[in-house]
Amino acid sequence: MTNQKTVSIVGASGYTGGEILRLVADHPHLQVGQIVSRTYAGQPVTRVHPHLRGVDMPSFVEPSALQACDVLVLAMPHGQAMREIEKYAGLAEYIVDLSADFRLRTPEAFQRWYGEAHSAPAWLEKFAYGLPESNREQIRQSKYVSGVGCNATATNLALLPLVRSGLLRAERPIIAEVKAGSSEGGATANPGTHHPVRANVVRSYAPVGHRHTAEIQQVLRLTDVHLSLTSLDIVRGALATAHAFVRPGTTEKDLWKAYRAVIKPEPFLRIVKEQHGLYRRPEPKLLAGTNFADISFDLDETTGRVVAVCAIDNLMKGAAGTAVQCMNLMLGYDETSGLGFRGIHPV
Amino acid sequence: MTNQKTVSIVGASGYTGGEILRLVADHPHLQVGQIVSRTYAGQPVTRVHPHLRGVDMPSFVEPSALQACDVLVLAMPHGQAMREIEKYAGLAEYIVDLSADFRLRTPEAFQRWYGEAHSAPAWLEKFAYGLPESNREQIRQSKYVSGVGCNATATNLALLPLVRSGLLRAERPIIAEVKAGSSEGGATANPGTHHPVRANVVRSYAPVGHRHTAEIQQVLRLTDVHLSLTSLDIVRGALATAHAFVRPGTTEKDLWKAYRAVIKPEPFLRIVKEQHGLYRRPEPKLLAGTNFADISFDLDETTGRVVAVCAIDNLMKGAAGTAVQCMNLMLGYDETSGLGFRGIHPV
Amino acid sequence: MTNQKTVSIVGASGYTGGEILRLVADHPHLQVGQIVSRTYAGQPVTRVHPHLRGVDMPSFVEPSALQACDVLVLAMPHGQAMREIEKYAGLAEYIVDLSADFRLRTPEAFQRWYGEAHSAPAWLEKFAYGLPESNREQIRQSKYVSGVGCNATATNLALLPLVRSGLLRAERPIIAEVKAGSSEGGATANPGTHHPVRANVVRSYAPVGHRHTAEIQQVLRLTDVHLSLTSLDIVRGALATAHAFVRPGTTEKDLWKAYRAVIKPEPFLRIVKEQHGLYRRPEPKLLAGTNFADISFDLDETTGRVVAVCAIDNLMKGAAGTAVQCMNLMLGYDETSGLGFRGIHPV
Amino acid sequence: MTNQKTVSIVGASGYTGGEILRLVADHPHLQVGQIVSRTYAGQPVTRVHPHLRGVDMPSFVEPSALQACDVLVLAMPHGQAMREIEKYAGLAEYIVDLSADFRLRTPEAFQRWYGEAHSAPAWLEKFAYGLPESNREQIRQSKYVSGVGCNATATNLALLPLVRSGLLRAERPIIAEVKAGSSEGGATANPGTHHPVRANVVRSYAPVGHRHTAEIQQVLRLTDVHLSLTSLDIVRGALATAHAFVRPGTTEKDLWKAYRAVIKPEPFLRIVKEQHGLYRRPEPKLLAGTNFADISFDLDETTGRVVAVCAIDNLMKGAAGTAVQCMNLMLGYDETSGLGFRGIHPV
Repeated sequence: MTNQKTVSIVGASGYTGGEILRLVADHPHLQVGQIVSRTYAGQPVTRVHPHLRGVDMPSFVEPSALQACDVLVLAMPHGQAMREIEKYAGLAEYIVDLSADFRLRTPEAFQRWYGEAHSAPAWLEKFAYGLPESNREQIRQSKYVSGVGCNATATNLALLPLVRSGLLRAERPIIAEVKAGSSEGGATANPGTHHPVRANVVRSYAPVGHRHTAEIQQVLRLTDVHLSLTSLDIVRGALATAHAFVRPGTTEKDLWKAYRAVIKPEPFLRIVKEQHGLYRRPEPKLLAGTNFADISFDLDETTGRVVAVCAIDNLMKGAAGTAVQCMNLMLGYDETSGLGFRGIHPV
Repeated sequence: MTNQKTVSIVGASGYTGGEILRLVADHPHLQVGQIVSRTYAGQPVTRVHPHLRGVDMPSFVEPSALQACDVLVLAMPHGQAMREIEKYAGLAEYIVDLSADFRLRTPEAFQRWYGEAHSAPAWLEKFAYGLPESNREQIRQSKYVSGVGCNATATNLALLPLVRSGLLRAERPIIAEVKAGSSEGGATANPGTHHPVRANVVRSYAPVGHRHTAEIQQVLRLTDVHLSLTSLDIVRGALATAHAFVRPGTTEKDLWKAYRAVIKPEPFLRIVKEQHGLYRRPEPKLLAGTNFADISFDLDETTGRVVAVCAIDNLMKGAAGTAVQCMNLMLGYDETSGLGFRGIHPV
Repeated sequence: MTNQKTVSIVGASGYTGGEILRLVADHPHLQVGQIVSRTYAGQPVTRVHPHLRGVDMPSFVEPSALQACDVLVLAMPHGQAMREIEKYAGLAEYIVDLSADFRLRTPEAFQRWYGEAHSAPAWLEKFAYGLPESNREQIRQSKYVSGVGCNATATNLALLPLVRSGLLRAERPIIAEVKAGSSEGGATANPGTHHPVRANVVRSYAPVGHRHTAEIQQVLRLTDVHLSLTSLDIVRGALATAHAFVRPGTTEKDLWKAYRAVIKPEPFLRIVKEQHGLYRRPEPKLLAGTNFADISFDLDETTGRVVAVCAIDNLMKGAAGTAVQCMNLMLGYDETSGLGFRGIHPV
Repeated sequence: MTNQKTVSIVGASGYTGGEILRLVADHPHLQVGQIVSRTYAGQPVTRVHPHLRGVDMPSFVEPSALQACDVLVLAMPHGQAMREIEKYAGLAEYIVDLSADFRLRTPEAFQRWYGEAHSAPAWLEKFAYGLPESNREQIRQSKYVSGVGCNATATNLALLPLVRSGLLRAERPIIAEVKAGSSEGGATANPGTHHPVRANVVRSYAPVGHRHTAEIQQVLRLTDVHLSLTSLDIVRGALATAHAFVRPGTTEKDLWKAYRAVIKPEPFLRIVKEQHGLYRRPEPKLLAGTNFADISFDLDETTGRVVAVCAIDNLMKGAAGTAVQCMNLMLGYDETSGLGFRGIHPV
């Protein structure tokens, strides 16, 4: 297909890189260009991405071999993209950076949460924050899009309807507890990811100070919102449980209205709130490999507490899937192109 | 051993009953009397409690066969013990009821949280709430002790030091998120516990309205405290993550002092808060089969949020272990008798 | 698309039925007709198949409402299809029966392994055994195809190259050990599938006498082949480990030749036998949701033992996937239509 | 207790070392002496053995600090003990070596299976192979005992009754398939043990050529016995499924007799073969932390195949537990001292 745009990926040996490759390979309007990894240069992609067995795809190449392409996806560790952004901008018209380098809108916020000065502050305003549900029009008009933090995304999507509806009770804090799998930690082994240690854990990780808090505060425009993370013995998936308080008198019906208003128009958001059946609220396992975010809400009428829950696949809606959704927006394709997989059950 | 007290168990086919049997069988001062189960009468206990293979123990008997004993443990579904308490009190000097029937101090609270009138309200004041860490002296002087809710216990132990120290900022809510395993749901199968459905879940269960909230409010004497539960693909174990706000100026050192004051004298509480090593915060898997509760706390100095975490084995410290600890107190034995198992690793 | 064939499913509430629905819904040449389930008639399919949320699909209907269609898939418990086959044959030109009723070629074999007389013996010869890798031409020319046993399929695909090559040492037995997940047991809960019981098991199930032995003997035309099953704490996936002995002097190179000859032409078979990388042999988790069968072989030159391993998704290549592959053959479509999903990683 | 023997451990940072420490700490006649680890010298044992929190125990020391003690346990990687055995023999009257260095009876066998010449061949005959069920009297009279391979032990215990009874059909091979958890691989992380990779696997590991084959052949005095290993997503536990053929005419009753004869006198072996209940055959999860080996057998009367299954905790009966059992025998204590834990359920 001569009209396909070429997507090259830098830092392609990580889990997000592997998912980008899978999605681009099956995308009707995109094709894989170069696959860059310093560590794995010269080796077949299947060495680290076994799900790509049988797919026609080039081997990893050295960073120095990178050539011009239509879309460049940067999937490097935090701090690298901002140092080389000028170089990459010379190679591709469109850039999606999956690191945290261009997620925050101000150098001050970056400094505060990432503990160093931003090395390319002028570029911050050129990047759109890549969450279509909160920022679609800006993404459509951008050449540069930043990826999203997975825990931030689950939390943001759970809470967006409450924020937009104005139902929140301002003086009360919002607490978001995200439960996540081991793929969030990336593809590099360390003593804490050794299977006998990591298996079966319910590990309080970053109970305070989690960096994704910054993205939540930025997207929701709230300050009194707090994030904790608990790591589970699953590989994929994140579930945000967000506790917020609504104004006295708020009813279940008000919440339905607020959630429907935000969720119904969105191609990848779904309300999962059922009286019957085996899965009555969002369940991350059902979303593995998909770009959906499933959302529920429960109201305690006595106390005004709302518990909003959002399940995602952290590597998809929380990273690679949303990135492809942004590419579709930037390039003018149907927003759902290449993102049709609906998941399997039982699983 | 002629001085051993005899413990009989009604409702002994459940998971808590099985653990009580294990603990009593190995207890230096207790011995198993009758093992009552309507469903399994006549069958060996190993039919449902395979960990008791090789232990010399009588078979299940019908409820009607129950005779006098020293200690009677009631492990029936909620609502049954209160209807028959007079009968049981005629059979044993000491009673430990593991249901929710005698946990709350007032019939009004019972009515509110359990949705029915209490059928033996006069007995409520005869029962001590069986959490030694909050109620030791009363337990020591009681003949009747109520068991504890597992999720309430993990939450109560996480927060007790904050409450006792007076560090809490009164006008802010406390949010407790408990993550728990499938054994909390009991030994009876239903479509939602079918393995292909229940495996791999991160299931928001009782996001609002959880009945254990009542025990938390009662023990901590707080009202603005809120509980949610998330079910995980583990069998045993519960981790409470409690988010509270402390008064401005509170330091990490203040928290150490508050937690040490409560935890150090307690034989089954431990602070697990380490800078190094593989397990830096409480981890339920390490506590399987033990009566320990491991507790940590983290302070976000910017916002004053404290995240207190408590891990327990829900069937032990959250049920059977604490029940035996209470028996030890009631009967005047060393409080740790029969509760010496320390767990295994890796696991 | 007016040329799409309509597929109706009887017994559609089971796991295989759910996968058939998923595959047909996304198939370029097929569309879902009626979805029959006595138990769930009138309810939406998402009540039991949550992965179909958002797919436009009719609700379950009563068996009595079944009308004519192009292809009828029967996914009922063993023993039902053979009793009503005349009725179903009157409703559809093409039938795929996923039960064991029409898998064996003789009424004697059925009687021996299923313990009852076959109620429609004349129909046995009308059905083709639906394993394309051993029976493609017959399937192509059939109107009636039987599904396959998942454990038999993993074993058959592991051993087919050894049988075809003539390398087997005739007087030595072949032992196949299949490890499988809980979805093999179907969608109905029982005390043994209760999560606290079923989790973490390594359960020897059907160590002798497993009925799939009959399909292995039939496909491979061997008698001295023996099957055992071990159930694991996974939901999907089966791994057959088949131990066979080859003639003295057989080399690794001979085995490569034998396996390549069978596997290379097959669209859904792959040799996975690598010196490097994270996944050097077949791994069922990588195949979840796909129709692939990954196969390896290892030779112990000292003893002549070959260990052939085959991984599949038991609900896909072991059931629904192969069924759709057979429909493609019967109806003259590209054999891989609707079966393009390649799986995800990490998982 | 002045009569306690002192046990020092070299290589104490591994999983087996951790279990030895747990068992010795609770043993009525033993006490922990020095805990040697080059890597962790100076650090508390809880850094790597969190289950020892709260146990009074010295920190790790350098190998050079090792002093005389009563019993020396060597838990080093294979190949080290044989190089330094003279030194260690000078420090302790009793030695238990958990590596493979002294398991095989001849230097030839060692050379064949471990690929190098044995560096202390004269010591091979001084060591007793430490499986009490096959070698109790020799262990009792030895000062030096070798540990056992966990996979070999599960297989040996499954098959010992068949061998002793003379029921085996000589010309047919025996195939043993052991399923094992990740703790078998030890405490050191590598890319293959990274949680997202290692989770959910059914990984054919060492399908041929597994070194434990040597121990099986030696203990059972058979040559036509073959071993394969499959790694599962569990941490502890091993299940051997051994397929053997018995002489024509052998009955279920003959097998009961053969298995009872071996198993009944043994304090840590149990037949688990039930018609009812939730766990009808051996299940490794029930044995976590215990020294039991549970064994079943099933006969296919048509083919004469017996499937013998044995479940153990690989770190206990497969390593540390059996080692303590041997110490009890060597030192003249009750064979079960310190090994009383019976496991928990549900788990």
